Amino acid sequence: MWHQYHFQLKPRRRGFHLVTEEILSHCLAIGTIRVGLMHVFIQHTSASLTINENADPTVRSDFEAWFNRAVREDESYYRHTEEGSDDLPAHIKTSLLGNSVSVPISNGRPNLGTWQGIYLGEHRDHGGARTLVVTLQGE
Amino acid sequence: MWHQYHFQLKPRRRGFHLVTEEILSHCLAIGTIRVGLMHVFIQHTSASLTINENADPTVRSDFEAWFNRAVREDESYYRHTEEGSDDLPAHIKTSLLGNSVSVPISNGRPNLGTWQGIYLGEHRDHGGARTLVVTLQGE
Amino acid sequence: MWHQYHFQLKPRRRGFHLVTEEILSHCLAIGTIRVGLMHVFIQHTSASLTINENADPTVRSDFEAWFNRAVREDESYYRHTEEGSDDLPAHIKTSLLGNSVSVPISNGRPNLGTWQGIYLGEHRDHGGARTLVVTLQGE
Repeated sequence: MWHQYHFQLKPRRRGFHLVTEEILSHCLAIGTIRVGLMHVFIQHTSASLTINENADPTVRSDFEAWFNRAVREDESYYRHTEEGSDDLPAHIKTSLLGNSVSVPISNGRPNLGTWQGIYLGEHRDHGGARTLVVTLQGE
Repeated sequence: MWHQYHFQLKPRRRGFHLVTEEILSHCLAIGTIRVGLMHVFIQHTSASLTINENADPTVRSDFEAWFNRAVREDESYYRHTEEGSDDLPAHIKTSLLGNSVSVPISNGRPNLGTWQGIYLGEHRDHGGARTLVVTLQGE
Repeated sequence: MWHQYHFQLKPRRRGFHLVTEEILSHCLAIGTIRVGLMHVFIQHTSASLTINENADPTVRSDFEAWFNRAVREDESYYRHTEEGSDDLPAHIKTSLLGNSVSVPISNGRPNLGTWQGIYLGEHRDHGGARTLVVTLQGE
């Protein structure tokens, strides 16, 4: 049993954002799957998906602060600079964090831990609406 | 053909630990799958899963040393500090390394390379027993 | 419907390389899958797979420059040093970037975004030919 959804997330400002519920609102067939997997894929190279703490928003703002220090803008050795100071760092952050997450499905629901949620990492200053492809499979 | 296992790993101290055999001991149906995938998911936001060198334990201790320097405790700009100095760095390390690994299954066994093993990254000082969900599928 | 391919990539020099077309040339059955997933796994601990920008080669050279600065060779605290200066950093880069990528399949093709391609991260000075296991599934 396969289901695939292709949709856009609402545009968000640069930073990390909890998007679990917005994703699930597009994937209604998940309720029919007893055991399976949910694969969430972002079709971009300057925005990422990761799973982390779903409660305290300071985790997301600390993520933004840490990644901005770890992957600096305007390093003198960068050569890919024509699309803006935020562009090459956005590519690196995306590969550090990843383009997809896979979550087990159990009894019609994503089997996340109590404190887990899916983050969108928006790494551009003006990234716009990001496109996802969600693939559900199971029985 | 789907199989799903929900179990706890033995508690381990902070650091990187080889857990391939402990995981496989919970997933007996893997032997019945000729071709498929094993998805291993950790239901936590301060412990990670990754695949790396399975032989020399100094790789694991060097990982712990490198990640502790790359993601420092007690940075003055952190705001998520109420759960201890190790907490926010543990969240960042988890997203850098990832919450899941997917391994091909071939002829009833995980088709890992000769030198590959599954690591648990325990990023808290006192993380306790960590819960995994392993999903096997194939034919 | 499952298909699994086990093959070597051409050897490449240290750095990041676009390998989407070379991978697809080995996976002819993808054309028969209407909806599914492609799982690409590298059986090594010092070379990685990630998805990033497929157009400008300076993205790949900037990746190499950034990762070489983020994960230094010859740090005095490394203990895993007997296989060369590039070895332990290659292990760390591999776990930061990951051992596998999963891509949705739609209408017989990998459903990558316009600017996305699959990168091989070759992190050793003399890594040789790297072995992949690609698993296709779908309907």
